[in-house]
Amino acid sequence: MNFRILAKILGALLVLESLAMAVCGIFTIIDPLRHSESSPQSLFYGALITAAVGGVMMVLGIGKIHKIPRREGVVIVGMGWILSGVFGGLPYVLGEPSMPPADALFESVSGFTTTGSTVMTDIESWPRGILMWRSVTQWLGGLGILVLFVALLSYLGVGSKSLFRNESSFQTGEVSTARIRDTALSLWKVYISITTLCILGLKFMGLTWYNAISHAFTAVSTGGFSPHNASVGHYSDWGNGWLIEFWLSLFMLACSVSFLIWVVIVKKRWKRLKSEEEGKWFSLVCLGSAFLIAFGLAHQNSEGYLEALRHAWFIVVSIASTTGFGTVDYEVWPSYALIILGILMFLGGCSGSTAGGLKLSRLIVFLKTARFEVVKAFRPNKVFPMQVNGNSLDPDARSQIVIFMALYSFIVMISALFMGMLEYSTGIDMETSLGAVLATLPNIGPGFGAVGPTDNFAHFMPATKIFLCLLMILGRLELYAVLVLFIPSLWRKY
Amino acid sequence: MNFRILAKILGALLVLESLAMAVCGIFTIIDPLRHSESSPQSLFYGALITAAVGGVMMVLGIGKIHKIPRREGVVIVGMGWILSGVFGGLPYVLGEPSMPPADALFESVSGFTTTGSTVMTDIESWPRGILMWRSVTQWLGGLGILVLFVALLSYLGVGSKSLFRNESSFQTGEVSTARIRDTALSLWKVYISITTLCILGLKFMGLTWYNAISHAFTAVSTGGFSPHNASVGHYSDWGNGWLIEFWLSLFMLACSVSFLIWVVIVKKRWKRLKSEEEGKWFSLVCLGSAFLIAFGLAHQNSEGYLEALRHAWFIVVSIASTTGFGTVDYEVWPSYALIILGILMFLGGCSGSTAGGLKLSRLIVFLKTARFEVVKAFRPNKVFPMQVNGNSLDPDARSQIVIFMALYSFIVMISALFMGMLEYSTGIDMETSLGAVLATLPNIGPGFGAVGPTDNFAHFMPATKIFLCLLMILGRLELYAVLVLFIPSLWRKY
Ligand SMILES: [K+]
Ligand SMILES: [K+]
Repeated sequence: MNFRILAKILGALLVLESLAMAVCGIFTIIDPLRHSESSPQSLFYGALITAAVGGVMMVLGIGKIHKIPRREGVVIVGMGWILSGVFGGLPYVLGEPSMPPADALFESVSGFTTTGSTVMTDIESWPRGILMWRSVTQWLGGLGILVLFVALLSYLGVGSKSLFRNESSFQTGEVSTARIRDTALSLWKVYISITTLCILGLKFMGLTWYNAISHAFTAVSTGGFSPHNASVGHYSDWGNGWLIEFWLSLFMLACSVSFLIWVVIVKKRWKRLKSEEEGKWFSLVCLGSAFLIAFGLAHQNSEGYLEALRHAWFIVVSIASTTGFGTVDYEVWPSYALIILGILMFLGGCSGSTAGGLKLSRLIVFLKTARFEVVKAFRPNKVFPMQVNGNSLDPDARSQIVIFMALYSFIVMISALFMGMLEYSTGIDMETSLGAVLATLPNIGPGFGAVGPTDNFAHFMPATKIFLCLLMILGRLELYAVLVLFIPSLWRKY
Repeated sequence: MNFRILAKILGALLVLESLAMAVCGIFTIIDPLRHSESSPQSLFYGALITAAVGGVMMVLGIGKIHKIPRREGVVIVGMGWILSGVFGGLPYVLGEPSMPPADALFESVSGFTTTGSTVMTDIESWPRGILMWRSVTQWLGGLGILVLFVALLSYLGVGSKSLFRNESSFQTGEVSTARIRDTALSLWKVYISITTLCILGLKFMGLTWYNAISHAFTAVSTGGFSPHNASVGHYSDWGNGWLIEFWLSLFMLACSVSFLIWVVIVKKRWKRLKSEEEGKWFSLVCLGSAFLIAFGLAHQNSEGYLEALRHAWFIVVSIASTTGFGTVDYEVWPSYALIILGILMFLGGCSGSTAGGLKLSRLIVFLKTARFEVVKAFRPNKVFPMQVNGNSLDPDARSQIVIFMALYSFIVMISALFMGMLEYSTGIDMETSLGAVLATLPNIGPGFGAVGPTDNFAHFMPATKIFLCLLMILGRLELYAVLVLFIPSLWRKY
């Protein structure tokens, strides 16, 4: 393990983070509606500490780096997200009101991983600058703070292939070494364009610039933080509330299918679109789930089917895209609807998007593979070719995907057990144990039980909060980049 | 598909089943305590109908069979269990009291698959002959009605390799074609010896012959039917109640590790025992879970640790072995204990035993495989050899096992959703939806929620009961032998 490389790159990452913090501090100074004098200070103090630590690390790692080896790349990805989370929590601790350290870590990690679970019991009592920082962490985390970083690194001439390979959202056949920088830049351009469009639409529908930016940042990153206690439900009573919800649902959808779709559309390479299966299936799953749930809701609440469909659609898209915005309390829905939501949480969005979860393409590969296995019972020697999204998958690649899926399920079960043991003394129920895991590992935000859409995570013990932070990062980096940090031989000198 | 072969062999299977039914009828006649005159009739009528249908099928399939091809073998296994279940339900329908057809099917399938879920609300009100038939179905289903059948077939000179391969419990490296008959016979000898030992012990502890036989039959088959409403809890107040529980737990344990262990011990091939990992791990898992749960129980109920351990041990072994006997109501235990039980249900016993579930060896293979995948993140070209139970597993075999595990988890989720939809109108909760699936698919018996250890399955709708029958058979045959029946090309003429 070459610690000089780690120090240099992780230091640079922290310096970048401190800049984002400082920008939020400046916003607080110029914000005409700021209602707390202390918030710019906490953001600037946070930025200062982060910059100082980052600077010292860069000095420790000084020297020219030609290439980041695979091992160091793996560690940088995992440690990068952990460090961003830790330092991103400073503004929550340093200001007034302030949080205990475990809460601040939770809120910060929940931001960067675009989970959107919160420990704030009264969100609206917090300074606007802090809430803006909260949204900014999600927007940065959305496409991966490291993509920006990779793009910068490649300008500096540092080989960053190993970083890119471990940054989960981009393990697609589309990205080749030579095109990493171009692709990263295209992705960011698309991301910024989509965000801008979302902001303008919300502003046009009557939101203030502050609220439009906050919700756009957390919708396109599928993060789900909202500056309102009632989340998007804040706008339910507005005359055009349904339009605001629909507009947001479009952007959540757009950002939970592969961003390469938008890059391809911008570049007018229409032919590539034909082979795209995942986004098509994802839209169908959302539509089907919404109709199925709306049917039960209309029956249960004896409300109009259209009204039921409005709520079902928003919640289904919000959950399936792993955003976690709320309008209604889905916990009072019939249990089959809750199970659908639970499965959608587990599944998550499409690969190559800002969404979390298992990713639909993995389910598609798994279902095809399982069918082959069944047929093998009477045709043991048949060879089964497979294509997903236009890419051929050999048996080795399929098996890797199925192993991932099994490991993901296994971690859900074991984590639910661990939650039950950690919170044993508080008399936690099974639903909350599982709900907290499904809220955090797939980066959803709200869960079930005592962490449902009308609750928050404040009531957990500090140890539980730290455990949930681990789950959020584990899910965001799709397991391996975190699990590998626990393998002793990774850290061996060589 | 050669339907002549199907008819002949499935017909013979039904004739054998009718014999077992007739034996229970004879028991009713000679039973001094019989309290219902109608029970021998229902058993004899059932036997008559089953024998008649079986006889007609055998006549339809008349002619010499030299070899059972793979396709036909697959169908015989799946259809054999379905038909046994259907005809095994006749005695419940034909007598007085009687059950509706869906209930009778459920009770019968629950017997043959050694699940042990019941629709009887007051077990003790049923005739002793019917309850004996209920225990006999589990004992026969325990080691697989088909193993007996295979042994008979091999005497008749019919190649039955393809049957054996699809009979889940024996897909081990140990069994070679040439030794199928010997192995099947050894297994049955061991099974009968263990059963006899269990009966004698229970008799010695004060049970009547009837109760000793009933409980021994359902303990060694890890079935879990009991003729008492309170299950094994019936003996809790006895002075030697703890001894009866402990004795039963030993037999449940012995029958949820691979039977090949006992064959090997009988044949004094000690060296083979060294490489046996699964049983060792299984015992450790049971011990660890029991201690962990006892800790919480002692704390919760402020009862002695020894008393807590007695209950925790019995329930853990009863669940982990997929037997499902009950002594205490585990649903009042702390939620982490329930999650442990849920995971044990899912996991089940060891391969090559009478137990159901995923099987521990699959988890072992999966965990080793997952660790290799993590290490591959920084050592992509390393080759990882793997041994389990002394057998080498190539990457292909490992991947098959992981696919099975993922498919099993997927079926659990989808079935819970389907349960929620089937029982939507009754307002079923999430816990019951999942609990009913975990009770039936891994052949446990009791579940969670409205199908917990103090409840039964009578309150479900007929369609739900039939769906649960499918899950029981699916789990018992380890998925493929049932799923394959839904592949249209299997049935093609060739
Ligand atoms: K989220
Ligand atoms: K059972």
